[in-house]
Amino acid sequence: MPGNIPDIVIGRLPLYLRALTRLAVEGQEVTSSHELGRRLGISSAQIRKDLSHFGGFGKQGTGYHIAYLVDQLRQVLKVDQEWEVAVIGAGDLGTALLHYKGFSDRGFRIACVFDNSPQKIGKNIGEYVIHPIDEMQKIIQERGIKIAMIAVPAEKAQEVANKLIEVGVRAILNYAPMTLNVPSEVKVQYIDPVVQMQRMTFYLT
Amino acid sequence: MPGNIPDIVIGRLPLYLRALTRLAVEGQEVTSSHELGRRLGISSAQIRKDLSHFGGFGKQGTGYHIAYLVDQLRQVLKVDQEWEVAVIGAGDLGTALLHYKGFSDRGFRIACVFDNSPQKIGKNIGEYVIHPIDEMQKIIQERGIKIAMIAVPAEKAQEVANKLIEVGVRAILNYAPMTLNVPSEVKVQYIDPVVQMQRMTFYLT
Repeated sequence: MPGNIPDIVIGRLPLYLRALTRLAVEGQEVTSSHELGRRLGISSAQIRKDLSHFGGFGKQGTGYHIAYLVDQLRQVLKVDQEWEVAVIGAGDLGTALLHYKGFSDRGFRIACVFDNSPQKIGKNIGEYVIHPIDEMQKIIQERGIKIAMIAVPAEKAQEVANKLIEVGVRAILNYAPMTLNVPSEVKVQYIDPVVQMQRMTFYLT
Repeated sequence: MPGNIPDIVIGRLPLYLRALTRLAVEGQEVTSSHELGRRLGISSAQIRKDLSHFGGFGKQGTGYHIAYLVDQLRQVLKVDQEWEVAVIGAGDLGTALLHYKGFSDRGFRIACVFDNSPQKIGKNIGEYVIHPIDEMQKIIQERGIKIAMIAVPAEKAQEVANKLIEVGVRAILNYAPMTLNVPSEVKVQYIDPVVQMQRMTFYLT
């Protein structure tokens, strides 16, 4: 299936899942592509087309059953399981990630954290002990971890990424403000608040 | 000019600026669309086309002068000035943002932070005093702040956004995991690590 669905469609599915989960929390049981579209600022036609790639989950006229659609989307996105995630870098950002409560009910669990600073290694952040970066490859390989968040300075990020990929990591969320060079079988997503703000200042008057 | 340039092109300019700034830090003075393309995983033809929207900054055969191109891109993106940014929410994430060192040399300066928790109001985070959220509109309007980062829980984010927009905020970086409903003159960018990871798990085997 992955080969047939445009990546841009895949990119919207987590947004649908997030909005549907919210509707469910608000107590709603059924929704429509129109309501979902209004919530997300996406046209209802686009939503129907996107969902039709997966066999369409709704019936014309009666709307989508939210619980069913949530279930299907979780399966498609493979977050009907819990993925272990490694965090590299225990600075302010790494610490905020370790404290974040929003991963577990959406398919992810931070499993371990690594840093190279002797002042940090062995210390605790909440329930996590900071491991030395020298043990990163061993631990990640042993646990079979496929997903990592890189929260180290830009000049260290490529080296960290290379080491992660060597031991089987295939999905990287990169918080370091630089573009990583990775083989085609590895997926990378980027978070750089400055890049996103610079995109908006262009339009400010 | 904004009306004529596709938004997708604008979205790439901060990446060019970031990569060029890095090359400059590494001591390089001249680069090519090929080198930039390799660094960014973008085709050199695309880069030349994107930059041609702004009159093209390079000469065929001799490459781009990095310092000049950096300067031009900073002007185009309007980050040749320093924008004041308000942070709403002084939890783990807001705190990490206040400690982040990477804003100031890229066009932004956090000016103030707000929270609604009596335990937090009046306390310091680094050089910042946490202001009560009741003073948010007054302070933002007085200072003429146009950019805000929302780092409050999802169920409060829309209400906060509405209040920000009322007093002149026109660019929002939303860290709350939900889609905001805003008028067309307001730009929003989103950061939700879970959405970005769910985009990648689809491809994992």
